[in-house]
Amino acid sequence: MKRFLLSVLFLQLVGWGVSVVRAEDGSRLWLRFDNVSTAAAVTGVKCTAMTELKTYWTGGPVTLKRQKGLAADGYTITSQGGKTVIAAAGDAGLLYGAYHLLRLQQMGKSCDNLGIKEAPAYDLRILNHWDNPNGTVERGFAGKSIFLNPDPMHMKMYARACASVGINGTVLNNVNAKPEALATESLAKTKAIADQLRPYGIRVYLSINFASPIKVGGLKTADPLDADVIRWWKDKVNEIYKLIPDFGGFLVKANSEGEPGPQDFGRTHVDGANMLAAALKPHKGIVMWRAFVYAPQSSDRANQAYLEFMPFDGQFADNVIIQIKNGPIDFQPREPYSPLFTAMQKTPMMVEFQITQEYLGAANHLVYLAPMWKEFFSFVKPASLKAMAGVANIGDDTNWCGHHFAQANWYAFGRLAWNPALSSKEIADEWLLQTFTTNARCVATLSQLMLDSRENCVNYMMPLGIHHIFAGIHHYGPEPWYSPRGTRADWTPPYYHKADSIGLGFDRTLAGSANVRQYPDSLCRLYNDIKTCPENLLAWFHHVPWDYRMRSGRTFWDELCHKYDDGVRETRRLLAFWDAMQPVIDQQRFYEVQRKLRIQARDAEWWRDACLLYFQTFSHRPLPLDVEHPVHNLDEMMKFRIHIGMYENPECGYTK
Amino acid sequence: MKRFLLSVLFLQLVGWGVSVVRAEDGSRLWLRFDNVSTAAAVTGVKCTAMTELKTYWTGGPVTLKRQKGLAADGYTITSQGGKTVIAAAGDAGLLYGAYHLLRLQQMGKSCDNLGIKEAPAYDLRILNHWDNPNGTVERGFAGKSIFLNPDPMHMKMYARACASVGINGTVLNNVNAKPEALATESLAKTKAIADQLRPYGIRVYLSINFASPIKVGGLKTADPLDADVIRWWKDKVNEIYKLIPDFGGFLVKANSEGEPGPQDFGRTHVDGANMLAAALKPHKGIVMWRAFVYAPQSSDRANQAYLEFMPFDGQFADNVIIQIKNGPIDFQPREPYSPLFTAMQKTPMMVEFQITQEYLGAANHLVYLAPMWKEFFSFVKPASLKAMAGVANIGDDTNWCGHHFAQANWYAFGRLAWNPALSSKEIADEWLLQTFTTNARCVATLSQLMLDSRENCVNYMMPLGIHHIFAGIHHYGPEPWYSPRGTRADWTPPYYHKADSIGLGFDRTLAGSANVRQYPDSLCRLYNDIKTCPENLLAWFHHVPWDYRMRSGRTFWDELCHKYDDGVRETRRLLAFWDAMQPVIDQQRFYEVQRKLRIQARDAEWWRDACLLYFQTFSHRPLPLDVEHPVHNLDEMMKFRIHIGMYENPECGYTK
Repeated sequence: MKRFLLSVLFLQLVGWGVSVVRAEDGSRLWLRFDNVSTAAAVTGVKCTAMTELKTYWTGGPVTLKRQKGLAADGYTITSQGGKTVIAAAGDAGLLYGAYHLLRLQQMGKSCDNLGIKEAPAYDLRILNHWDNPNGTVERGFAGKSIFLNPDPMHMKMYARACASVGINGTVLNNVNAKPEALATESLAKTKAIADQLRPYGIRVYLSINFASPIKVGGLKTADPLDADVIRWWKDKVNEIYKLIPDFGGFLVKANSEGEPGPQDFGRTHVDGANMLAAALKPHKGIVMWRAFVYAPQSSDRANQAYLEFMPFDGQFADNVIIQIKNGPIDFQPREPYSPLFTAMQKTPMMVEFQITQEYLGAANHLVYLAPMWKEFFSFVKPASLKAMAGVANIGDDTNWCGHHFAQANWYAFGRLAWNPALSSKEIADEWLLQTFTTNARCVATLSQLMLDSRENCVNYMMPLGIHHIFAGIHHYGPEPWYSPRGTRADWTPPYYHKADSIGLGFDRTLAGSANVRQYPDSLCRLYNDIKTCPENLLAWFHHVPWDYRMRSGRTFWDELCHKYDDGVRETRRLLAFWDAMQPVIDQQRFYEVQRKLRIQARDAEWWRDACLLYFQTFSHRPLPLDVEHPVHNLDEMMKFRIHIGMYENPECGYTK
Repeated sequence: MKRFLLSVLFLQLVGWGVSVVRAEDGSRLWLRFDNVSTAAAVTGVKCTAMTELKTYWTGGPVTLKRQKGLAADGYTITSQGGKTVIAAAGDAGLLYGAYHLLRLQQMGKSCDNLGIKEAPAYDLRILNHWDNPNGTVERGFAGKSIFLNPDPMHMKMYARACASVGINGTVLNNVNAKPEALATESLAKTKAIADQLRPYGIRVYLSINFASPIKVGGLKTADPLDADVIRWWKDKVNEIYKLIPDFGGFLVKANSEGEPGPQDFGRTHVDGANMLAAALKPHKGIVMWRAFVYAPQSSDRANQAYLEFMPFDGQFADNVIIQIKNGPIDFQPREPYSPLFTAMQKTPMMVEFQITQEYLGAANHLVYLAPMWKEFFSFVKPASLKAMAGVANIGDDTNWCGHHFAQANWYAFGRLAWNPALSSKEIADEWLLQTFTTNARCVATLSQLMLDSRENCVNYMMPLGIHHIFAGIHHYGPEPWYSPRGTRADWTPPYYHKADSIGLGFDRTLAGSANVRQYPDSLCRLYNDIKTCPENLLAWFHHVPWDYRMRSGRTFWDELCHKYDDGVRETRRLLAFWDAMQPVIDQQRFYEVQRKLRIQARDAEWWRDACLLYFQTFSHRPLPLDVEHPVHNLDEMMKFRIHIGMYENPECGYTK
């Protein structure tokens, strides 16, 4: 049906013809309005909203006014007879209202007879930048950190882009934080950035290294119950607030993947988080304490966060929020939601999504992530969360995100943090109308391709619940065999896929790691029974026999082959449809995206071949004749290395 | 229909199950019979036939007898009540009869109640080895020359393989001959080889360098009318025949691609050939004089051989045969036949086929060539020729030909030289039954795949009459753009494809180079009119407009895209079917062929992408949405080089 729809759409494309489309480099993101020649009449509150409207609004007069009784950051827009009024409780709301108006203008929508009332779902809509002091960005695929030498014009564009989708907070540095982030000279830099972002309603936050009292303060310990340590943090926080009165607070990765934390001193997450919270409390600052913890000795990493945090439910201070990744492992193409979200009842929680595509083809693959995040919200009620964080995909590349379509994920994150009820399609349409074209048929086609792209990525990378079979370091290509002697088991794919002669997948049922028990009863029962477990999570919760009969009637092995092959075919189809868009897309972006889609098509083949040939060494079953058979050799793929680390986008995928 | 047939066949494969198939390295070619434990009763003429039968024949008693009145090399086989009689005029015929019997045995056919009478179509069935004195083989993709250090067991296997398919002559050295081939020490080596091949009815021949009298003899000239030169050749020939009394004669590449020839001394092909023929005549030796000539100044290389040789029709001595390549250019995947074949009426001619896959994917691609040669014979009557030569694909690789399936081309060449009326399918079936399996369903499937393979190669390399768009040196991959400054135009692809904004192809009509006029009137008319010209030769004879309407209803451009894409898909299908054969094929050969087929599938993609993207820069037309769109980038493909020359098989194709 979907396929048919696209074909019909395409037939209608033929009439497009070639129009002159000016070259664009993507640097303007979705804010592609031109400066107006004559400033519009904007009256009322003097604020950033006024500047934006005077610079870009082409419509009739606008009045900005403050109005009590509206939610913080909320706004109303009313228009009649060519006159528009934006009302909000404060400047931020006015700015969001102004961007709403400009968005309508850019999308070619009518701006008359408006009666809009908006308020954000979350007070805190925050980007996490994993930027290092040396300018590298962990899992950054779009160049160096934009905060390394922040150019005012660049910072302004960043601030406008964030504010235009409602983002109101940004953590400037990597969660694997260097202690130096709190050194005085570093704080001066942070202040400079904060000053540039403030007019756009964006507060800055810092990731902190829990051992900072030792490393920066010269203390002998970082024990959170130590009086000197407590005093050091209090002083440091005061120092920060003197520079940045609206500083947001701290993001903490503690006792996770080798980072220091309270457990190093015999203390708990609660001890650590509450101590920091106490220092921040007088300034209304917050602590975002990450629940991303796992241990090498654990027989199921997916169990660990729950085991470590559930005992503390209700014990965290009220300005602590536990920041939990959407899934229990680590940003895989598909995971079930992290069971902590439904288990913790007395603790403020926020979700951490990953906008940067660490596990989704980096800046080479077109994967629109809104459907993944919406899938999360279909299990976790938005209202059960306090805030939403997204690991940014932003760097100093001209087009900000490495891949033109990766901008859509930054955009979608902001829009969903504002309103998680928006559909993936609404957001894709909005973004396409603002970035590429207002041609409705073209938008409909591209939008559908975007909507399909995440499931397609799951198909060619790790369908049916398979997870974490990535290359060891860069997480770009497939290495389901990766298991060098001496490596922690839970850092190797065989730990997760557990392929053997019987089947494939991780038994997390009650007979296995019992991870299912962390879910509410109804889900526990559903996941625990291979017959009722959703097939897209089958190998997540079960060790599935190769000859297990799927709903399609195929064996699990045959279904696996078909899923991988579908992924390859769909990726090629995506490329073909993009090629067909050439007449309506400007040349530079057309070719840049085309080049990426070609890489993606080749990579999909690489994924399919590597995974099927490797798993075939366990299944000992032939590939169905009606799937395309591998064109690469397993032994060659196993020797192949991409010589990049975690700070770069690979130039391309497999080269043989 | 074809596709359907194969699917049906495959459904029947499912029941094969896994049987124990012992590993094989392909070294035994199609002569895979084991030594018998007890020698069969073979009586009569003591000859090689007797030895072969005593070693391998498992049936009842055989009598070998000489019988007058049978054609040279012909034989009869009669069997009744378990007793078999092979009769022939001489030992060679008896040997061919013995191999016929052994072939039936190996194929699992009944050997009772036989009443066979066979005689070869040509007296001369000859391999041309393009082997150099240093052991390299020009356009050799299977290792070094087998004649470099000829091991007796190896020579014997070579002789048996040749004799088993009726090959009775072999030119030991490259047509680009070093003068040293006639030096006395070199002749001693030639004698040693001749002695080893003689028991199998195989005569040796040598390619000669026309300047040998200067280079070897120390004369001042090689003028064929010079008395000293004439004497030198006479003496040299006498010297050869003293060593090798049944020496076959000379193969000569003269005044072609820089080789010396009579024109260097103001003489003609006739002067040169007849002088050599006179020296050989007393010994019953022959001259095979190649018609492969072309000139840099010619506006159509396809015209040249005709222009240069037709004036001499009827003037060559009766022991000269003009050896003409099957097509007018150079062993392309598809060419029309060389018009000399139908034009020359008074001159003995032989066809030169190329068994080695210089232009057909080297030893990496499975391309069964019998259909190509049969296509030639559908235009040129076999009886109009005097002999058949094939450029060998043999080297010192364990499996002789680099690709297991390339052995089929050596086999098919011999069988067709014996009997050009055999169908491609008969030959493929014979070869498969002897080499891989006697499972009838498996043979039927593989046979069909072999039969389709040449047309498929044409599709992914150069469909619709396109030709010679190969990489400059190694002729392996696509380089339709290859045209370095200073290179002879007729050594560059644009000379042949002539792509421009209007269309693609070489105008050889009467309005163009008038090459069509060299063909008989009926063909001339057929080829001259774009409406009647066979579509598979369209761009050979016409500069075809991009929007020319093909019989399919598609434009020429769209048809071109579909042909290339069909080639890719069919190559993948070939791989899939091979994969499905695993249960019935021995492990080593299965994996070695699979690896090659994977290269071929990737190469087909490379060909399609390079050619379509390059031609698209002229056509400015989009690719149809229902063909797979290129996954490689033209600029990257244009920079890509395979660093091999003309003496190696590329390890693999495009690597990006």
